[in-house]
Amino acid sequence: VSTRSKGRLFIIGGHEDREGERTILRAICRDITQGDRRLAIVTAATGHPADVAREYTAVFQDLGVTAIDVLDVRNREDACDASVVHMLAEAAVVFFTGGDQLRITSHIGGSPLCECLHDLYRKGHTIAGTSAGAAAMPDTMMIWGSSDASYQSGGLGMAPGLGLIKDVVIDTHFAERGRMGRLLGAVAQNPRNLGIGIDEDTALLVEPNGMGTVVGSGAVYFVDGRHITYSSLAECRATDVVGIHDVILHVLVDGDQYDLAKHTALVPED
Amino acid sequence: VSTRSKGRLFIIGGHEDREGERTILRAICRDITQGDRRLAIVTAATGHPADVAREYTAVFQDLGVTAIDVLDVRNREDACDASVVHMLAEAAVVFFTGGDQLRITSHIGGSPLCECLHDLYRKGHTIAGTSAGAAAMPDTMMIWGSSDASYQSGGLGMAPGLGLIKDVVIDTHFAERGRMGRLLGAVAQNPRNLGIGIDEDTALLVEPNGMGTVVGSGAVYFVDGRHITYSSLAECRATDVVGIHDVILHVLVDGDQYDLAKHTALVPED
Repeated sequence: VSTRSKGRLFIIGGHEDREGERTILRAICRDITQGDRRLAIVTAATGHPADVAREYTAVFQDLGVTAIDVLDVRNREDACDASVVHMLAEAAVVFFTGGDQLRITSHIGGSPLCECLHDLYRKGHTIAGTSAGAAAMPDTMMIWGSSDASYQSGGLGMAPGLGLIKDVVIDTHFAERGRMGRLLGAVAQNPRNLGIGIDEDTALLVEPNGMGTVVGSGAVYFVDGRHITYSSLAECRATDVVGIHDVILHVLVDGDQYDLAKHTALVPED
Repeated sequence: VSTRSKGRLFIIGGHEDREGERTILRAICRDITQGDRRLAIVTAATGHPADVAREYTAVFQDLGVTAIDVLDVRNREDACDASVVHMLAEAAVVFFTGGDQLRITSHIGGSPLCECLHDLYRKGHTIAGTSAGAAAMPDTMMIWGSSDASYQSGGLGMAPGLGLIKDVVIDTHFAERGRMGRLLGAVAQNPRNLGIGIDEDTALLVEPNGMGTVVGSGAVYFVDGRHITYSSLAECRATDVVGIHDVILHVLVDGDQYDLAKHTALVPED
């Protein structure tokens, strides 16, 4: 697993608390409020950009962020608009809202806005995303698949993602929607990829050195398929449930760390 | 894992098909229809014994079983009734319906009926159970716990089970109800126990030599915690989500085999 950059990723499993302690959003704000820096909220994923922008703007203002730009990207024209790109270039932190990850990639992928995003991340800025905004971060992203179901070989849709993080597949709303089956499927498709399943109100903060720290009230599941000894995926029909042997699984909670470079869960210190 | 007996167990994840191919119930019938042998349907788990008995009696008759006794055990008096015990003693195969596993153990545990059940199993008869009838089989059984949720240390109820199979914990409706979290919790409580999570319309058939074979349309998950290197269970508060490192997970499908004695998933032959 490599992050290719000096920036940090806040990968959020969706439904992060916006009314109480707001632990996750508060942690993101720490990257902004040090100095006079701007937050860019990208509503590209959602079909209700005005509502979503209003909600997040209010929360972030309440948490002390004074300079907020909303990037209401609805199509490729927006993603190529120089004024939009300029706005993103000014951001210390970029926050992708939830919605549909294909809206993000089909509108932003390969655009000047996308180049600017990668530039920011390489230079050391922070990219945060929740739900679809989290799922879209890897080279390849999950776009559909059954919840509360075992993985059938034809039961998973993948698409090219934003490419901010390599060799991982990210799933969100993880325990809440019973998504172990589909994440196991994504890992079985190519066990090079570490499966990362993130619960609601829970985030994985990935540092440039590849160290990931869990923040929030739920768990983050790490599905390591590198030692899989057998899977039936290649042989079975689309409606067949897939057999997989020897997956290694870690469940990490608030404060726990996983070294993405070494594929190791660190034992918490007392 | 040891089964202590010459009999077989059909451990069914609930909602087995009763209208179509009926693969699982048909497999159980194979143990009955060879020779002139009786099936005992035990409705102890359910609050609707008449309806449940009627449904299963019709299905098993349709599958060619001619000699069926219904054991409508509603209390300890029933479980001590000599005529009920006599009925069970005549059975080649015993089938426990779904419902609530505490109804089974609180009414039958320690009764003459329970002794008779163990006798049958030791002698080589088949004990089948679906849903609650499956969950009740181990020494210790799960009785409650959240679905679609990560495991909180206070979020799981266990109770003494029928003791037909040692060193396992069984969960049912597994993928359908997103129960990986609670099964991981049950395993973390004592990693001596292998966690077995069984999907709906799916069964694990356990032979006296400890070989388990998957039958049905879903998957069976084997959660092997013997190599857990760390868990936060003992340190955390009841509402804390629990961190667990280095769980080994296998997903097996129809026809696949798991050697419970050796903790090994067998690689299917072509």
